[in-house]
Amino acid sequence: MMSYRAPLDDMAFLARSLPDADAIQMITDQAAKMAEQSWLATNASADAEGCHWHDGKVSLPADMRQAFRHYADGGWMGLTMPERWGGQQQSEVLGGFVGEMLTSSNHALSMLPALTMSACRAIIHHASDSLKDEYLPPIIAGRWSATMCMTEAHCGSDLGLVRCKAIPEGQSYRLSGQKIFISYGQHDASDNIIHLVLARLPDAPEGIKGLSLFLVPAQLSDGHDNNVHCIGIEEKMGIHASPTCTLSFENATGFLVGEAHAGIKAMFTMMNEMRLGTGLQGVGLSEHSYQASLSYAQQRLQMRSLSGIKNPDGIADAIIEHPDVRRMLLTQKAFADGGRALACYCAQLLDASKHQDDDDTIKLLELLTPIAKGFCTEVGLESASNAVQIFGGHGYIKDNGVEQLYRDGRIATLYEGTTGIQALDLLGRKVLGNQGASLRLFTKQIHLLCKQNAEHPRLAELVKRLQPYAKEWPDISMKIGMKALQNHDEAGAASVDFLMYSGYVVLGYFHLKMALEADELQHTSVASNEAHTFTSDFLQNKVRLADFYLRRLLPRSTAHKQAMLEGVDSLAPAW
Amino acid sequence: MMSYRAPLDDMAFLARSLPDADAIQMITDQAAKMAEQSWLATNASADAEGCHWHDGKVSLPADMRQAFRHYADGGWMGLTMPERWGGQQQSEVLGGFVGEMLTSSNHALSMLPALTMSACRAIIHHASDSLKDEYLPPIIAGRWSATMCMTEAHCGSDLGLVRCKAIPEGQSYRLSGQKIFISYGQHDASDNIIHLVLARLPDAPEGIKGLSLFLVPAQLSDGHDNNVHCIGIEEKMGIHASPTCTLSFENATGFLVGEAHAGIKAMFTMMNEMRLGTGLQGVGLSEHSYQASLSYAQQRLQMRSLSGIKNPDGIADAIIEHPDVRRMLLTQKAFADGGRALACYCAQLLDASKHQDDDDTIKLLELLTPIAKGFCTEVGLESASNAVQIFGGHGYIKDNGVEQLYRDGRIATLYEGTTGIQALDLLGRKVLGNQGASLRLFTKQIHLLCKQNAEHPRLAELVKRLQPYAKEWPDISMKIGMKALQNHDEAGAASVDFLMYSGYVVLGYFHLKMALEADELQHTSVASNEAHTFTSDFLQNKVRLADFYLRRLLPRSTAHKQAMLEGVDSLAPAW
Repeated sequence: MMSYRAPLDDMAFLARSLPDADAIQMITDQAAKMAEQSWLATNASADAEGCHWHDGKVSLPADMRQAFRHYADGGWMGLTMPERWGGQQQSEVLGGFVGEMLTSSNHALSMLPALTMSACRAIIHHASDSLKDEYLPPIIAGRWSATMCMTEAHCGSDLGLVRCKAIPEGQSYRLSGQKIFISYGQHDASDNIIHLVLARLPDAPEGIKGLSLFLVPAQLSDGHDNNVHCIGIEEKMGIHASPTCTLSFENATGFLVGEAHAGIKAMFTMMNEMRLGTGLQGVGLSEHSYQASLSYAQQRLQMRSLSGIKNPDGIADAIIEHPDVRRMLLTQKAFADGGRALACYCAQLLDASKHQDDDDTIKLLELLTPIAKGFCTEVGLESASNAVQIFGGHGYIKDNGVEQLYRDGRIATLYEGTTGIQALDLLGRKVLGNQGASLRLFTKQIHLLCKQNAEHPRLAELVKRLQPYAKEWPDISMKIGMKALQNHDEAGAASVDFLMYSGYVVLGYFHLKMALEADELQHTSVASNEAHTFTSDFLQNKVRLADFYLRRLLPRSTAHKQAMLEGVDSLAPAW
Repeated sequence: MMSYRAPLDDMAFLARSLPDADAIQMITDQAAKMAEQSWLATNASADAEGCHWHDGKVSLPADMRQAFRHYADGGWMGLTMPERWGGQQQSEVLGGFVGEMLTSSNHALSMLPALTMSACRAIIHHASDSLKDEYLPPIIAGRWSATMCMTEAHCGSDLGLVRCKAIPEGQSYRLSGQKIFISYGQHDASDNIIHLVLARLPDAPEGIKGLSLFLVPAQLSDGHDNNVHCIGIEEKMGIHASPTCTLSFENATGFLVGEAHAGIKAMFTMMNEMRLGTGLQGVGLSEHSYQASLSYAQQRLQMRSLSGIKNPDGIADAIIEHPDVRRMLLTQKAFADGGRALACYCAQLLDASKHQDDDDTIKLLELLTPIAKGFCTEVGLESASNAVQIFGGHGYIKDNGVEQLYRDGRIATLYEGTTGIQALDLLGRKVLGNQGASLRLFTKQIHLLCKQNAEHPRLAELVKRLQPYAKEWPDISMKIGMKALQNHDEAGAASVDFLMYSGYVVLGYFHLKMALEADELQHTSVASNEAHTFTSDFLQNKVRLADFYLRRLLPRSTAHKQAMLEGVDSLAPAW
């Protein structure tokens, strides 16, 4: 079995100045035990067993069901949910840390609470009080789960094509149609499943503005079955323990959530939360890939170091002595640690947005969400691929577990909006859509950080690496924006390179910031009220990781810059 | 089922000036039928079924066995083998084209002939005449197959650690030990299996210089079983239909191939051939990924083009209208087409080396082999990942086949020497090892091509893109070489970035060369003796593909250059 240890020190480092640092430390400790033990224990066996579909009923591997009950019965589903419906109302920062551990230890299982909590968010924001009071408490108590039902066979990215129908009948509606790719659309680990379904009312306009959102329980409150049938589950590359269901709604009773024809807005509440959660899957994938690789690289003896024997008593040196193996490990760790800092910052923005209606907070969160989702999942795939590579041929074998990381992780750049969709959202809506106003909020932070530390006694060289991006990033955006005014396809032609460029810069900012903070903690007396003490090695490693990142990974931004500036005429069909 | 059409026009374009262009066209036509029909037909079902191990015997999926017999009984195993032992002695260029089709249509199955032919090569070059006369004819006739047995549980990349023993007994030897990861080490599609085994004689020095190579048949000529037991097969991420065997040699009779203690030299004859073959797997993967994606992207309707409706009668536009989808498709096609040109050039060098003992030919081939293997397999993974991405969520589902490409292809950067091993071979042995002499042979070609076409009426802009690399590539090598003199680890710290940089430049050269040739064919009257006529669209697409490659993919070299020049101190452990 693979081992995994929750990166509690790294989390504590990020949380150390937050008001709830103590609570975070205490609760992440408990979550770590659950992730490292019951969730991890079932990861490989559940992958091998997969889900079972029989006559419309789906059963999960038995120990997966148990691991989920352990989580749900422990009250974890309510961690960040409002107290009013039974939640503990902890911060999103804490929720994010716990979410990362769960996805690291068991991607397939972590989708069940993640989807359920996102659905709660949509209900909280958009449903009527009576729906909230009826449906939120059992979900938050962990007895029921929830899904989001958007995709149909002919529409994935393009929800404007949804055909599912809702006919009014008294206070409720009758839903009919088929939805595909519904994760945990049917399973046997909860007493009831609450579906949030995008459908069209009879008088709905065409396209995306004609969608309404409905709450459709699998079982009605009178105990009757609501005619939501799982007519099959998919065979997939990975996440075998997460049932991907085709659901058929056959005159099922549903309740309108929010206004008629305003379903897409409600769905986006859920979607944005899910996108941040999917970004965390990328982070968790990088972290687990790193840990598995590190321990293998320290143990596996193969060849002598080019710079002289390092392990004279062994038959060979550990492969970690080979610089290229270290390059792969540092890449994984830099993506995990930088991605976690980005995710934590997004969570802080989300927490802040609950308490104050500050436009800048929302703008920053909106800007960073597609980056967290798109970039962290893409580089998560690289981390998982590096794990396979570090294990060599042994990485391709089932027993060693890293091939599962590679297969499971591959879903993350596809669902909740592909990387291409994230990229269009980022460049089109979040950057060009407000003439770079949101972007400037972030590049101003880069500028300030670099300006304040331009003469840093130890890290000025690193500061110099990041500093040009404060100007270059908005400059590039403007260039593309000007071209896109002439031809909208210019945005599409630049978008994914723009997303990746943005991700490299954003992680560069967080790595530099962490290095500066670590350096400060190392070189000044630590304030006594800090909840956690960090070893000198730990702090030194943050600096080394930033050094690696800014010197060896940030330069990738250059290639993306050059590519995106070539414009749409470089993409002429050649077939 | 996925469709696949052998890229016969692209192959004919590369072969058009070769002396055997006619034979190539005729025989690739036949091979295409076999690949597109029987080999492709069994690809998905054999993946689902996998191999069976029972009581030491391995059976392949029945239709795989049939597809292989179709190939072997058709005499294909002897395609490039010497006439003396029953082969057809066709060119390596032709052999490469056929190999690519087979690996595109069925990666798992293609490994059986590829390994067998590589083993033949080692026998031809190093074995005694009596061994050749006894073992080559039945192999070349397709009745027997062959393996290479190198890896043991504790040694993969580091063959110096091999423990398998060989004790002399009369004219032969007794071999004992265990080998792992032996592809087709046991199977039921051939009458006999000939193993080439690395082992140590009793008086062998330690390390790699103490290895000898032995020919160990599974069945002896008297029909007796030779005590080579398959004690298990691996469960893997992909290539399920290719049995990965653990073989136990228990006093098995073997015959020395080549000199005692010179086994590694003989093994490298086989290895170099396998590396070129593995490079072809990368090319074939890119090609199949491209074809699958192209046909999906032309059919799948989703969203409207940003630059206006393209398919007014449909519910949406085909996703190929979205520039980012085209970017992914062009990337796949550029890797396939450029990689094929590189592989074809390597095959020409191999053909030339058979007829003349020219040092420059060998040097170029040695330089390009790790690039063909390392680079083409790495970018093959990107092509396969793009295929999954273009299919969206549907790419993650088994039915659509692209997820199998992604899983199967993942082996190619691991076996026959990982990318890290290729990179050390390239930088250490092939470039720095002769002070850049081999490299200059290639960069001189770049220089000449660019100089001759600097004023090209239509393509001067593209020429300008490639031209700086003729100088930059050797300059970078020299810089790294100087550093590595001080600290050998500097080579390891730069190696994989150097390999990828080199690959981008080499493919840039071939794309430019093809574009110039296509342009010439388009703008001058085609010589009447050309075996094949190319449509104007076909030729124009070569130019467009080069335009895409040089503008959007070649810039990636910049990121690799920057990263590799940072040196080993950027890779300090951060754990």
